[in-house]
Amino acid sequence: MKVSVRVPASTANLGPGFDCLAMALPIYNTITIEETVLPGSGVDINVISEDDAIDQMSIEHLSLNENSLIYKAVELLYNSIGQNPSELKITIHTNIPIASGLGSSASVVVGGLIAANELLGRPADEAALLSIAAEVEGHPDNITAAIVGGLVISSLEDDCTVVYRKLEWPNEWNITVCIPDYELATDISRSVLPKDIPICDAVFNAKRMAMFVQAIHTKDANLMKLALQDRLHQPYRIKLVPGLERIVEALKHEENVLGCVLSGAGPSILIISQKNNLDRIHSIVRDTWSGLNVKSIIKTLGVESLGAQVISNED
Amino acid sequence: MKVSVRVPASTANLGPGFDCLAMALPIYNTITIEETVLPGSGVDINVISEDDAIDQMSIEHLSLNENSLIYKAVELLYNSIGQNPSELKITIHTNIPIASGLGSSASVVVGGLIAANELLGRPADEAALLSIAAEVEGHPDNITAAIVGGLVISSLEDDCTVVYRKLEWPNEWNITVCIPDYELATDISRSVLPKDIPICDAVFNAKRMAMFVQAIHTKDANLMKLALQDRLHQPYRIKLVPGLERIVEALKHEENVLGCVLSGAGPSILIISQKNNLDRIHSIVRDTWSGLNVKSIIKTLGVESLGAQVISNED
Repeated sequence: MKVSVRVPASTANLGPGFDCLAMALPIYNTITIEETVLPGSGVDINVISEDDAIDQMSIEHLSLNENSLIYKAVELLYNSIGQNPSELKITIHTNIPIASGLGSSASVVVGGLIAANELLGRPADEAALLSIAAEVEGHPDNITAAIVGGLVISSLEDDCTVVYRKLEWPNEWNITVCIPDYELATDISRSVLPKDIPICDAVFNAKRMAMFVQAIHTKDANLMKLALQDRLHQPYRIKLVPGLERIVEALKHEENVLGCVLSGAGPSILIISQKNNLDRIHSIVRDTWSGLNVKSIIKTLGVESLGAQVISNED
Repeated sequence: MKVSVRVPASTANLGPGFDCLAMALPIYNTITIEETVLPGSGVDINVISEDDAIDQMSIEHLSLNENSLIYKAVELLYNSIGQNPSELKITIHTNIPIASGLGSSASVVVGGLIAANELLGRPADEAALLSIAAEVEGHPDNITAAIVGGLVISSLEDDCTVVYRKLEWPNEWNITVCIPDYELATDISRSVLPKDIPICDAVFNAKRMAMFVQAIHTKDANLMKLALQDRLHQPYRIKLVPGLERIVEALKHEENVLGCVLSGAGPSILIISQKNNLDRIHSIVRDTWSGLNVKSIIKTLGVESLGAQVISNED
């Protein structure tokens, strides 16, 4: 039996939404799990890049062994029904840049889980898949967007369930994803965050999150400009992303730009804008990074409203 | 000339909304400002209680002199047009319990400001009144609800403007206000809050605020139950309000109760519930406080959708 699952990229930590707000994007990894014929052959994980932008070194980050996140996720699922994974060949076709803040890791966890769940005859429902994936990833935002699609508020509750709600992104607001050709490992990006923060910064982000949801419901661009501000992660990480300060500063003069925020733990950047000043936005980002000898991919994308999809299931 | 303004009570810090979420309630103070005929007679402030629950000691908290908040607010307004207040008699008819967490202080600030603005021929617009009132109060939540009415997210921005948006409270959710007969000064209640908090608590409240706004828009009771949880102020203040822990615990077993939160800095409590289990809720609160020899007023109220109103303006 052989199952393939297509999983979207995702951008998390959107503006004020550190660890709780994410959006699926139309860039995809495909994860295939095949039962092999050789008994005792273990679990074999292979990564195939479909994108020239992903080099071999990046692929090695996926750590191709039984300690990888995808293996952990698949193992937890098998264990939940009293089994252990074995005789599996897992193939990851990657289009999502690795260690770029676009949910590459969440996508393989989710793809592996859903493919394994199909192989096993779907013992786990959505809630169980969300719980396992959040446990493996450590936070629920990317995995929820990858599983259910769209723009999602999510929370990993004390009982290990993931509570989420989908919001509808206003079509008139553009999402521009800017991916520099350097990587930033999530653990480095996490290490610069303080353990404690001033209570006034907590109030700042809490009201920004309220503004964000209100702005989404009422398509209120003025409110969105305020809502996208953050004091929980972007100020601490901005120095880890060369060029980001300059890009943020330059975009402040562009009236139609609603915000310029880190995607996930970076280094990718998300720019939210209205109306058609996309060429200008693209050139500001490209030129700033060029000046620092950084190549970049800059794409204006819609939201992927679907989450992970089983695209083939062969006996 | 003599102007009277009726100003609603307000409940702030609602659930996760410390310093940014408040709601106007249908309990009112009336503030009257009269120009006196004696030149050089200064500003005379009098408080008249219309409620037996408000004793003379409470009234003294309003500090009836030119240092009072209402005087500061009126003075700032006069100064903004190059004048100083003089020959004014200010009378406050109070129905809102003082130092109870129901926005009594905000209501007199707002009433004084709006009455003085009428006397002066309305030099200040809504934005200017909000800025002055927030400056005097130090936070924008109660004063915004008192000025514009309804359920309001508000933020005092770096440029001293108050940004706010009104949300529509779902009619099917009851608001029960429980007022014990002891007082809790806001400065004591503020003093127990830490300066710094764990970043995970900031994330907790930020996502709760997103859930709150989403729950209001979609009338999602399950989400509201989660949304009303708080880690920024209630855990630190719960010991200052005798009986609150027991009430919270008892209400956890009531399926229709969505949350039990401090009103403002306390000691009043707000209980959000659905369907008709109001008698049960009232008796849980009344009995718990009775057991501690605390008398209480318990009222189930609607939201006051109007803010402060000029109710008379005599030449």
